[in-house]
Amino acid sequence: MTPPGGLTPGPPAIARLSFNQITAERASLAEAVDACARHGVPYIAVWRNKLAETGLDRAVRLVRDAGLRVSSVCRGGMFPAASPAEREARIEDNRRAVDEAAALGAEVLVLVCGAAPDRDIAAARRMVADGIAQLAPYAAERRVRLGIEPMHPAFAAERSCITTLAEGRCLAQRFDPATVGVVADVYHIWWDPDLYEELARAAGRLIGFHVSDWLVPAQEVLMNRGMMGDGVIELRRIRGAIERAGYVGPIEVEIFNEVVWNTPLDTLMPRVKERYLSCV
Amino acid sequence: MTPPGGLTPGPPAIARLSFNQITAERASLAEAVDACARHGVPYIAVWRNKLAETGLDRAVRLVRDAGLRVSSVCRGGMFPAASPAEREARIEDNRRAVDEAAALGAEVLVLVCGAAPDRDIAAARRMVADGIAQLAPYAAERRVRLGIEPMHPAFAAERSCITTLAEGRCLAQRFDPATVGVVADVYHIWWDPDLYEELARAAGRLIGFHVSDWLVPAQEVLMNRGMMGDGVIELRRIRGAIERAGYVGPIEVEIFNEVVWNTPLDTLMPRVKERYLSCV
Repeated sequence: MTPPGGLTPGPPAIARLSFNQITAERASLAEAVDACARHGVPYIAVWRNKLAETGLDRAVRLVRDAGLRVSSVCRGGMFPAASPAEREARIEDNRRAVDEAAALGAEVLVLVCGAAPDRDIAAARRMVADGIAQLAPYAAERRVRLGIEPMHPAFAAERSCITTLAEGRCLAQRFDPATVGVVADVYHIWWDPDLYEELARAAGRLIGFHVSDWLVPAQEVLMNRGMMGDGVIELRRIRGAIERAGYVGPIEVEIFNEVVWNTPLDTLMPRVKERYLSCV
Repeated sequence: MTPPGGLTPGPPAIARLSFNQITAERASLAEAVDACARHGVPYIAVWRNKLAETGLDRAVRLVRDAGLRVSSVCRGGMFPAASPAEREARIEDNRRAVDEAAALGAEVLVLVCGAAPDRDIAAARRMVADGIAQLAPYAAERRVRLGIEPMHPAFAAERSCITTLAEGRCLAQRFDPATVGVVADVYHIWWDPDLYEELARAAGRLIGFHVSDWLVPAQEVLMNRGMMGDGVIELRRIRGAIERAGYVGPIEVEIFNEVVWNTPLDTLMPRVKERYLSCV
């Protein structure tokens, strides 16, 4: 019997590997860029807090001089807010995120869409749709794609009211596929009973793929991500489904984990590459 | 505009209130039964570990002498296991749980379905379906209904591979509705983008309703439940949808929370009743 999602592929190409800099949360952007360059990792994903520390112009030079490409900027989004003025301020901040992504030549601005400011999750979902509608023309002009990242339902009250691939896809489908797509992060979606059907339905809309693992037993849910292979996620089977849906772009390794964060970069990078090749 | 789920109802009847004894985790069954009786709570939900401490015959007498009814026994399930022998042992344990529910006159045996023993969540889902198929005739003979409780996806790796109302309903629909239904617990389902549509689709299959709240910020996900009204869940709106789907049975208050567990029962019970009336 063919497993759900079909047959699994061989190892992914190193040419697609991206190091999401949250995986080295203690390092500066300069240190993360340097580690990628020395260890032959072709892509990096850049966080805005690190960008602010470094300065945009210097960040652009660092990345360019190292010969890296930027798979994504993390993160825009956070659209829902209690007042119209606050929502407008969030849009304005998202425009700055688009500018930063454009300056870095990033393929995608990842959207962590935001949670309700109150108990009304349906209203928050409408604010997300409205926010993306306001932002999309600005992003399109600057040739930055907006990647809706459905987040694990454990984050629904604090980070994103967009909780499933189906919901992210339906939201993306209201917009031009050249501008708005979906980012699939295994940590957020692995449990979904419709996972493989939904990945197939997302064909043409997938613009990012993030990998880590779900550790058992789970402790605090934000920091429960592990190195690929250390948890329960069927990474290679999921990658197979994502490739059959047409996504062959960068694969970001994005791990929130204190042990990983405390590992020296020259120990961490070879492990990331090894696990990427053996598990993803 | 009518909110999702339609208009909200008034307060629920006290006649439907059930105290799930995990809400008083430090108390014995005798103490929890006594507190329910003194505070005019008509139903109790009984946990099997407490039942084992008390002894089944004594438990039956305690509940009957207090004039209480048992809304459910927690819990059966945990069907997936690595070997056929272990899976058979789980079924056998589930038969004992059915016996206990029957002895207590419980309306429902709650099924926490179990997680994969490995990385294969699809196989675990098949083991759950097989397990229920094996258990259902035994339950039907003893007039105990099996309540599939979809659990929050944060528990998918450790407690239940059945993670959404849709998945629980589709699974239940393979069986006679007189024997197998779905238990809706707000903590597990509140985030679902299809929540109101799915509650409507579950009409005729809903056989339990559990309430608590989702606290913000979330800490450890098992213990993140709060007293109704202390979190972000739209409890009354959800109750309205559940009643429109035809469920008018007991409403269990089920709270895993250290602060609640450390509250003396004579302080806790009036608070449970007050919040039930004002928030559910």
